Formats: sequence, C-alpha cells, structure tokens
Amino acid sequence: MRWPAGIASAGVAGGIKQEGLDIGVLVADRPVTWAGTFTKNAAAAAPVLWSRARLGSKVRALVVNSGNANACTGTPGTDAVAATARAAAATIGCEAGEILVASTGPIGVQLPVARVLAALPDAIAGAGEEDSTFAESILTTDTAPKTAEAAAGSATLVGVAKGAAMIAPNMATMLAFLATDARLDDEELNSHLRTAVGRSFDRISVDACESTNDSVFLMATGDVDVEPDAFAAAVYSVCKDLAEQIVRDAEGATKVVRIQIEGAASEAAAVGLGRAVAASDLWRAAVHGRDPNWGRVASALGSMERNLDLGALEISIGPEVVFSLGEPCGSLDVAAKAMGEPEFTLSCVVGDGAGAAEILTADLSEEYVALNAEGTT
Amino acid sequence: MRWPAGIASAGVAGGIKQEGLDIGVLVADRPVTWAGTFTKNAAAAAPVLWSRARLGSKVRALVVNSGNANACTGTPGTDAVAATARAAAATIGCEAGEILVASTGPIGVQLPVARVLAALPDAIAGAGEEDSTFAESILTTDTAPKTAEAAAGSATLVGVAKGAAMIAPNMATMLAFLATDARLDDEELNSHLRTAVGRSFDRISVDACESTNDSVFLMATGDVDVEPDAFAAAVYSVCKDLAEQIVRDAEGATKVVRIQIEGAASEAAAVGLGRAVAASDLWRAAVHGRDPNWGRVASALGSMERNLDLGALEISIGPEVVFSLGEPCGSLDVAAKAMGEPEFTLSCVVGDGAGAAEILTADLSEEYVALNAEGTT
Repeated sequence: MRWPAGIASAGVAGGIKQEGLDIGVLVADRPVTWAGTFTKNAAAAAPVLWSRARLGSKVRALVVNSGNANACTGTPGTDAVAATARAAAATIGCEAGEILVASTGPIGVQLPVARVLAALPDAIAGAGEEDSTFAESILTTDTAPKTAEAAAGSATLVGVAKGAAMIAPNMATMLAFLATDARLDDEELNSHLRTAVGRSFDRISVDACESTNDSVFLMATGDVDVEPDAFAAAVYSVCKDLAEQIVRDAEGATKVVRIQIEGAASEAAAVGLGRAVAASDLWRAAVHGRDPNWGRVASALGSMERNLDLGALEISIGPEVVFSLGEPCGSLDVAAKAMGEPEFTLSCVVGDGAGAAEILTADLSEEYVALNAEGTT
Repeated sequence: MRWPAGIASAGVAGGIKQEGLDIGVLVADRPVTWAGTFTKNAAAAAPVLWSRARLGSKVRALVVNSGNANACTGTPGTDAVAATARAAAATIGCEAGEILVASTGPIGVQLPVARVLAALPDAIAGAGEEDSTFAESILTTDTAPKTAEAAAGSATLVGVAKGAAMIAPNMATMLAFLATDARLDDEELNSHLRTAVGRSFDRISVDACESTNDSVFLMATGDVDVEPDAFAAAVYSVCKDLAEQIVRDAEGATKVVRIQIEGAASEAAAVGLGRAVAASDLWRAAVHGRDPNWGRVASALGSMERNLDLGALEISIGPEVVFSLGEPCGSLDVAAKAMGEPEFTLSCVVGDGAGAAEILTADLSEEYVALNAEGTT
C-alpha cells in the first residue's frame, strides 16, 4: 500500500509479541493537522489519554505497538507513553507533544518500554511511503492486514486497521490509522471523521465487549484542495470498508450477518435494536449452526424495546419472511439455506417509523471461546 | 419432594418434546392466593400474558409445558392457552380464569395443543403431594431437577425451577413454581415475592439473553399463620437456592463465578456493574480457561460506569488482589489457582460508596456454543 505524499510508515519486530512485527510508526514530513476518535471506556489506556490530549494541535508522527494494551498500568504505563513520545521526537527532531501513541493487546501488563525505545530509531529511519509492514505490525489475533483507500476529487485517503475481538459499538473496539493529502482545518477534519466513525466502526459488534484502546486517527497533509462532500464520502467509504473487514476477520468467525433494522422511531433507536440483536450470544450461536432461530431475534428486540409491537414486527432471513403479523411464516429451509452463505442479511421491520440502521456482526463459534479461554499469563 | 398440604403435582409425557416428561400440573385443593413475577420482554409469550392477567384473583391450578415456549405464535398461541385453561378447568371443576399457564422451550413454533389437552386428565388425576415428576417435566436442556425448601416458623415453602439458557437479569429467564401453606393476603404475598426475586433470580446471568417466558409463581394455601419477616426470609432463601442451582446447571457451564461489587454509589449501580461483568463473553471465556484476565473485568466495568476511578478500583480473584491503586499487583498464579475451583469469587471494590451486590454467572464454554448452534428446525 502507498500513503499520500509526505506520509511514510514502517513496522518492525521489537519483541513485545512472542514473534512477528509489533511496533509501527507513521511519520509525516511536516507538522500535520489530525483528527481522532477514542474509546469512551473509563478504563481508557495510557496511550489513549496521551493522544486524546493532543487533539487540536498539529503532529509529526504516531507510534503504535501490538502485543500490549498499556491499559490499567498506572504511573508506569503513563511514563512509558511519555518516554516513547520523547524518544520518537528526539529521533525525528520535534517536540514530544507532536507524537501520537497507540497500543493494542492484553490489558493490565506493564509495557516493556525499553524494547519500544530500542526499536524506534530503525523503524523511523526505515519508514517509506510504500509500505506493507506497518499494517502487519498492528495486528494481534487478526489473520490478515486490513487496508482501504478512496479518492475525493484529486485528493486521496488511505486507511489501515486492526480488529479481532473486544469489538463493540461505541467507537468500536479497534485501531485505525488514516492519512490524506486533503487540505482541511482541524475542526472540519474532526467533524468528518466523527460522522464517518459513527456510521461505520460504531456499527459493528463482535462480542459486545468495549475495549480500553479503541482509537481512530486521521492525518491530513493539506497538499490538495478538496470538496467537503467528496471528502466526507471518502472518509465514510474507507471507514466502512475497514469496519467490514474487521467483522469478516473477527476471532473465530465464519460468517457475517448484516442486521438491517427499519421502521424504528429514530436512527438511534434502530442502532440500539440492531446492537441488541448483535449482542445476543444465542442468536450468534444459531448463526454459527445455520439455524434460522428467529425467536432469539424477537426476544433480543423485545428486551431492548419494551413497547415493541409484535403485530407490526416482520423478520426476514435472507429473502425469506419468517415472522409476520404476529405469527411464524415462510420456509425455515429457505432461511437456513440463506444462512449457509458466508454473508447474509437479517432484516427486521419493527414498525412504521423512519429510523433505519445496519449493524454488522459475526457468528459465535467454539473457536472464539477456545481462543479467549487460552491463558494470557 | 413434598408440597405443603393441599398442593399436589404431576408430570407426564405428552409428546411435546421428542422424549421424556413435558407437561406438568400443580393443583390446589381449593382456590388459593398467588403471586407472580414475569418477564419484561415485549415479546412475552402467550402463557405469560394469560397468567399475568390473573394477578389479583385466586387460582386452583397451573399447567406448564416444556419443549415449546408458545411465544411469537400470534392468535393460534393465544387460543392454545385458553383451550388449555378451559380443559384443565373442566377436569378440576372450576373456571378457566382460575388456571395459570406457563411454557418453556423454543420460540416461534406453534404449540401442538391437542397433545396438551389429551394429556391433561391423566396428569390432574395423578397429581400427588409427594411427587418428583413435576420438577422433571419442566426441564429443557437442564441436566437435573432443581428443588428447594425453607421453613418460616411452622409454615413451609417449597419451590421448583428450571433454567439452562436465555438466562439474564430482569426477572431472570426461567420458570419457578413455589407453594406455601402460609397465610398472607394477595398484596403481601406479591410484595414478598417481588423483593425475593429482585435479589435472587434477577441477580443471575448466564448469557445476558432475556427470555420471552420468565415466570415465577407462588401459591399460598393459607393454612398456617406466619411472621412477615420469617416468611420474607424463607421466600428469599428458596429463590436464592433455586437461582444458584440454575447458574450451576447453566448450558455448557463448568464453573460458577460470584461477582461481588462493593463501594458503588447505590445497590442499583452495583447490580449494573455486576451485570456488565457477567455479560462479558471475553471474561466468561477466560473463566472457562482459568485465565485470570482481570483486564477484561476492568474494561467491562469501564464500559458501564463512565466515571469509574481506576485509582480507586480494586479487583481480587479468589483471595488474590490483582489490581489496586491503578496498577497490576499480586500473583496471577494464585489467582489462576482460585479459578480452578468449581466456584470462585471475583471481588470488585469500585469506590467508597455504600452500594453492594452479588451477581452470579457461569463460564462460556465451547459446549454452550455447540448446544446453541444445534438446529431447532
């Protein structure tokens, strides 16, 4: 993948993970405008607190590590972030406050910061506009790198993400790094990013577990003029593309479900109902077994919306309407066949309101349990 | 097990399930006062709607079936409940409005009501005060019957329950049937039951999935005078005992976790925090693997309480404090050893408030996924 001109990256093996690349740098050739959205979790990690505090000022680079979340790590964790920023700034020749930091991995383990510091000079020296190592260095249990790009007029937008687990709505639980050559001021850039994230990363859910490290970063070099609408569309396109890749590569997942809610009182209500279905272990286990158990969908909807009118509810699995006018209907065999595909749509019309939303989730498999029952210790 | 004098039960095989007992009757020898609590789910099943409408009037009997929830079944489902009540009333010699009905099993399948009607006369004729078949007839994927009893002065209280899955707080997702010979009026009886259920069944969670059929019934013959406090304690004791049995026998579960929250702003806040931890698939998978991954607990707490002060948070697994003063501490080996027991305590002190609560949950196993991926169709 190739970053916009002026942005370079690299990933190196610093020994944070047992093996593989685990330290990434994203470096701009000048101070750049940036935007960010972060987890709302009260146990937000030290790098989240550091980077969030940089909002509103220009930055030169970002340092990310996988293999350790640096969350719930107290003063040593905060010190590790500051030391990382200072070391990166010294190498680049800028202020520590111009360095963003991100981490992903197990919570509650002190970051071996000496390894980060030792790896930084080579990573920064090796950074290039054409680079595939950065996207690899941020992965944890992801099985493949995730990249996406879009054009906005003559401007370009490139993004990289990691997902895997602890994926829940509310600034969905993951890291993403975007860069563009478009020219926008700080406020515009943040506004476009927030809107796009709200309708992409915030509408995926793997296990309904909200993380301490969710962060999306967007750097803009400002070399190219851009139409706001075209830029908004490009940011949404890249965020949506990366979000869908995250669900497709969710831990243990074999299948993607597009939960489409229509007829809700508002878009927010539709999002809430979609999330409730996506959070149902029972429905996600049924998806894994290709069992068209729409009763688990009805009970999830009814647990979220106490005034749900069963008589107005219509549930379809793939092309088949399986519940309508308050009663079961249709062919469960047809519904089961639709569930056999790698991706299928669950459609729920919940009334005659104008609120609609799509939430993406994946199936709950034995492999997910096995992966997450494995000791981190 | 033996019911209080005047209450009799039986369970018979009516062919609703593929095999085994699936229709139960609980019969009083006179119209009795009763209390009930029901699911808050908007997709509440037909028998829930019927029985809830009987609150405030005396009843003679209750008919329950397993193997079919009679939920999301529209007019045929409503008709099936009425037909069941009429048939039971005709056999007993009372009004249909004096018959309570309950169901448990898959949602969205029409109840084969003719089989219920055919089985009812034998079931009612065979009902006895000493009976083990009723407790068996209400089971679905439960592996064992669940009974409990307590004394309140010279009065007795006996209860039977079923659980397995779709177990979540909010009138936890299950059925329970209690009977007593104590004398209380309708209002007192309901008040005692609501209080006990709120602190027992409403404080367990297996998969955070709220059911359409949750119901707890308590019949009182009124033969024996009782002290209100002693009776309240007995109702709580029986409900708590049954609730713990449900968690122990949760689908695929190998382990019970007592999530104890202390120092919250209120009891309700403590319950909310405990439920958030109990709803974490990641924490429950870690429990299954005996992995003392307390970071997943911190992130669940932080996703629920946005003002959580990490510096004031203390997390202990068994006897071992693993997070305190904002940093990891203690021995994860000691914590992992505690998690090897069939039951262990996860203690979270979240501040210096007076709110405390205990929520019970079980581990998330590959077997839970396998059980719930199996086709119902």
